[in-house]
Formats: sequence, C-alpha cells, structure tokens
Amino acid sequence: MTDPIDYARYDRIRPIRWTGDALELLDQRRLPFEVEYLRCTSSDAVAEAIRTLAVRGAPAIGIAAAWGVVLAARDCDAAGASEASPRLEPALQRLNAARPTAVNLAWALARMRAALVRASAGEGMDWRAALEAEARAIETEDLAANRAMGVLGASLIAPGSGVLTHCNTGSLATAGFGTALGVIRAGVASGDIARVYAGETRPWQQGARLTAWELMQDGIAATLIADSAAAHLMKTGVVQWVVVGADRICANGDTANKIGTYQLAISARHHGAKFMVVAPSSTVDMDTASGESIEIEERDPAELFAIGGTRTVAEGVAAWNPVFDVTPHGLIDAIVTEKGIVEHPQTASMQAMFGR
Amino acid sequence: MTDPIDYARYDRIRPIRWTGDALELLDQRRLPFEVEYLRCTSSDAVAEAIRTLAVRGAPAIGIAAAWGVVLAARDCDAAGASEASPRLEPALQRLNAARPTAVNLAWALARMRAALVRASAGEGMDWRAALEAEARAIETEDLAANRAMGVLGASLIAPGSGVLTHCNTGSLATAGFGTALGVIRAGVASGDIARVYAGETRPWQQGARLTAWELMQDGIAATLIADSAAAHLMKTGVVQWVVVGADRICANGDTANKIGTYQLAISARHHGAKFMVVAPSSTVDMDTASGESIEIEERDPAELFAIGGTRTVAEGVAAWNPVFDVTPHGLIDAIVTEKGIVEHPQTASMQAMFGR
Repeated sequence: MTDPIDYARYDRIRPIRWTGDALELLDQRRLPFEVEYLRCTSSDAVAEAIRTLAVRGAPAIGIAAAWGVVLAARDCDAAGASEASPRLEPALQRLNAARPTAVNLAWALARMRAALVRASAGEGMDWRAALEAEARAIETEDLAANRAMGVLGASLIAPGSGVLTHCNTGSLATAGFGTALGVIRAGVASGDIARVYAGETRPWQQGARLTAWELMQDGIAATLIADSAAAHLMKTGVVQWVVVGADRICANGDTANKIGTYQLAISARHHGAKFMVVAPSSTVDMDTASGESIEIEERDPAELFAIGGTRTVAEGVAAWNPVFDVTPHGLIDAIVTEKGIVEHPQTASMQAMFGR
Repeated sequence: MTDPIDYARYDRIRPIRWTGDALELLDQRRLPFEVEYLRCTSSDAVAEAIRTLAVRGAPAIGIAAAWGVVLAARDCDAAGASEASPRLEPALQRLNAARPTAVNLAWALARMRAALVRASAGEGMDWRAALEAEARAIETEDLAANRAMGVLGASLIAPGSGVLTHCNTGSLATAGFGTALGVIRAGVASGDIARVYAGETRPWQQGARLTAWELMQDGIAATLIADSAAAHLMKTGVVQWVVVGADRICANGDTANKIGTYQLAISARHHGAKFMVVAPSSTVDMDTASGESIEIEERDPAELFAIGGTRTVAEGVAAWNPVFDVTPHGLIDAIVTEKGIVEHPQTASMQAMFGR
C-alpha cells in the first residue's frame, strides 16, 4: 500500500540526539514549558537520566541506554573488544538497573553486548565504532518500526472512530513517531480517526504534559481528560479504540504498561470498545510466560504528594505508587508490532509470530 | 444494638459553623495546609462559596444553603412571612443555581420554603426564628443520619476487610461524621475494617487533600492511591468493598457521584469486590426515574491544567472536565441511607423504601 503519511508534518520531535561526543536528551521533566536538552557525557549520567525520568518511554530508554554504552566505551582505554567487554560490564549493569519494568532496556543492552562479541571476533575492527554503529542501528530501526506499526495499527481502525490513549507513547517515548501515538498519527493522517482523547496519566502527568503538547506540535486536535473520566467518556459512545503502548509484553500476550492501562482495558471491554497495544517487537519478552512474574516498579509515594513542585497532600499521609500494571491478554483485542498484528493474543498466536 | 463509636475520637471536624450573625465555612480550597474559616454574612456570599468549592459535598452544600436563607432573611425587612416569601425567592434561586447536580441543595431550599409557609400560617410567629430553627434542624438531622448510616453500612462489611473510597465524603462534606467516610469510621471503630484506601480524585484532589487529611485527624491509617491505580489495587485482593457517597440517587437506584465513581464500580464488579453507596435520604430523588436524565455539571477545563496553582499543561490544549458520572444501579450492591439498606437497588426496592 502507498504510505499516506507526511512525516515532515506528523513527526517533528526528536527526544534523543547523538552529537558525536555526547548524548542530548530532551528533558521530559521540564516539558511542556521548557524545551531543554540535557547533555550527558558519561554512561552514569545517562543511567541517572533514565532513573529520574528525564528520558522515559520504553523504546526511548533502550535507545538512550545503547548510547550510554557508547559513552562508557569512550571512557574505557581497553585496546580491544575482548578486553573492553568485562570492563564495560559494570556500566551496563548500572544502566540496566535504572528502571526495572521495561524490557527494551535489557534488550538494547543485550544487543550492545552482542555487538561487542562480534567486534572481538573481527580482526582489526574498531570496537568503539562497532558499538556506535549498533546504537545508531537500534535508534534507526525503532523509528522504522514505529512507522510500520502506525500503518498496521491504523488499518484496524474504522473511519470516523474516536480513540483514547494513555501516558505518552509518542516521538518523545521513542526514536520518533511513537508507538500507540504513531498509530494515532497514521489514523489522523489517513482521515480515519475523527477524535483523539488523552488521559492525563497521574502521577507524572505524561498525558497532560507530554502527549497533549506533542500532538499540538503536529497540529493534531486532542482532548485531555482526567484518568477517572475515561469510563464516563466511553459511555457516551465516542471511543471505539483504546490505543496504548507497552513496557513488556509476555509470551501469552499479558502486557505491562503505565498504571491505569488495566483499568482502561476493563472499562473498554465493559463498553464494547476495542483495546490495542502497540510496541516494537523488542518489547515482547517470550521468556516471561505471563504477567504474574513481571516485576512492577513502585516509585516514591512522594510522587503523589506534589505536582509541578506544589505540594497538595498533608505531611504524614501514606501512599502506594505502583508505576505499571498488567493487562491480561484476555482484555486485549490486538497487539501490533512491526512484525505484524496478533489479534486476540494468547500463547499460541504469540508463539507463531515471536517464537524462536 | 449498642453504638460502639467514640464520637469524641472519630468525629472531630466541623466544616460549617453558625455564629449567630454569620456563617463560617471551613475553606476547603485551602486545606490541608491552611485551616481557615471563610466568614459569609450574606446569602450571595454563601452562593459564591458553594460555586467556588469553598464548601463542597452534597449534604454540606444543602446545609450551607439553608443557612444562606437565614442570612437572606436578616437582610430582608419584611414584616411577616407572607411578605418575606416572594422577596426571599431571588436569593433562594441564586443559591439553587450555584451547583446543578447535587439534589440536597434543592431539597434543603424546599425545606426552608416550607418552613416559611408554616410560619406565615402561624399567628405572631417570628418567621426569621423559624428559618433559623429549620436550618439548625437540617444540620442536626444530617449529623444524626450520618451516625445511623455509619452503623448500618459497617454492618455489611465482614471483619478483616479492605475498603476503597473516592473523593471526600467525610465530616468535611456533611454536618459531621460523613456518609461513606462515616461507614469507614464506624467500621474502623468496630475493628471490622482492616485497610482503608483513598483515591486522590482528580482534578480537585479531594481524596488527596481532604480525605487523607481528615482521616489523619482521627488517627485512621489510610493509603492514598492514584485514581488510575484502583483496578491494579483490587487485583491484589485487598479491597472487599468500594464505599462512596452520592450527589443524587434516582428512583431506580442509578447514582450520580464524583467523576471516577463509575469506573470504580466497573472495576469492582470485574474483581468481585462489592460496591456501596452511602447518602442521606435527602439525596434520593424519586422524581428522577433514572440516571439518563441527570444533568452532569461540567466545570472549566482549566481545572485540569493546574494543580495548587502550578500549571502543568501547555497553553492551547483542550480538555473535557465533567465533575460527576452516573453509576447504573446494576453495578451497586447496596444503597445505605438513614432509613435503611436497599440491597441490589432497582425501582421496586427503592419505591418500597422511599416511595411517597
């Protein structure tokens, strides 16, 4: 099919920039009011940026970590890849530990390790250049995957539909274009999507701060809602698809994503709206059988006590702040990756597309 | 049964104080950091306090409006009740228009009108004193109703249960003790409730700002969660009852309450948790057949753009800000009023308890 998308119009933001000697990350804690790039010149600075959410979104975290390895390589005076491999490992471990739930982080680091192994096997190969090439490949492939997924996912959406998304899964969360937001971009570009709603996504407000801002940059009209208004919105009949990203997709299709996703899936099923998960195949973790064994990151309860630096909760209040939840595969109508669409995912259909 | 509740411990806050010449309202926009009473000396000041959420919660709004009528009476130099009645009507209309969804407001004003009619029939009766007595009765009866509901509602909750509530339905929302929070107080006092969770309740954060603070005043341990974490919490099995208040209960049991309530009811049903609505019988509106005909207040989208004065959303973003939603009676396990419990509410069982 002809690709109908004007990427110059619908893909304007780049959250990750490699300058040749530093990694620049669009600081997502300061958006939407300040568009500032954070300059990282060491792998530990990248790990810290991941940990503190300066860069977030499962695919973007993986890409940033890959460039973090390139920075670690610059700080390592090993003569060859074989010598470098064990010496780089502590930095890789620290990058890997920065966030526990998203599988893309571990996946990207595994690719970097594999690139180093290949470099150590190759005579006279510049192992630092090999790592840089691999990081660039991870980034480039992510963008290509997102564009492919956009067209695939949008093909499921009937003309005139309304969509609701959660968190930020856009250019800001990826190398560019986005996962769930890529599908929405493609659906808006083709004219099939008539209405876009975005949940504000407490406690970090990624929907309110990032998605609403990002869509505005592309001239896509969207309506922000409180997360708790989603079911009421669905009851009015304006939402045909809930379209979300993923931090980890298990072998049976169970999907970990931003807290609140599970609640949306339950409400979607209750109202007869469809539920789509969009993520690159690097998010699929066939080694994890089901959502039961996913470690759910819990962050500081203080994240619930203040917004934008303004405290709203009395001292002494206790809170529970899980950052992700798991949507069981039975509530998912379609998982879209760059490899294709798995409808009504379950172990057999997932194995057919992602099995090794 | 013996009332097991130590009210001196479990009922410490009073949001509404009549001083004899003014109405003092605990300003809920400034909680939890400033405990300040707003002094209202005219009915229009009371209407403004209702409109701007200085006083909120369906029962508290009704009580405040009743005292607003007393203030209007002081500003009216009519010689008798018959003469006063038409002259007070514009002030009553303005009070009634301050918030559209809660039925208690209209109910309290109807009681004040009826008191005036009775005063005009009585020879030599002080109509201003009659209005003041009626306002005081509305307030006193509300507190008594809440204490009765607390015991009734808690009787449904099995020992060792966890409960999740939404918004603020406590002393702050009523004359004292609270509706849903009264049930929680009673259940904690009796030892049956083992765990209390409160959703933060975007966009006004009544759960985070008010409920968490109010429970702390009574030494009740509660855990705050993001609204979007409710389903994930229920999945862990720690919630046996969702207990909420109401702004209007229809003849078939459909219930309008704070936005997000409907979503909790759907999730509760999905997880096998029970769902209880607690409100005084003044919240029951047998003239409204079902939730389809309830007017849902939509407030300024700007309420989603800032928290505590800190803007988090870019200029130009659109938002939809419904303040209430309707939970259909089929998702409600019990409606608790001071008149008794309606289990599995529907038109016939509601008519049996509330029919005229």
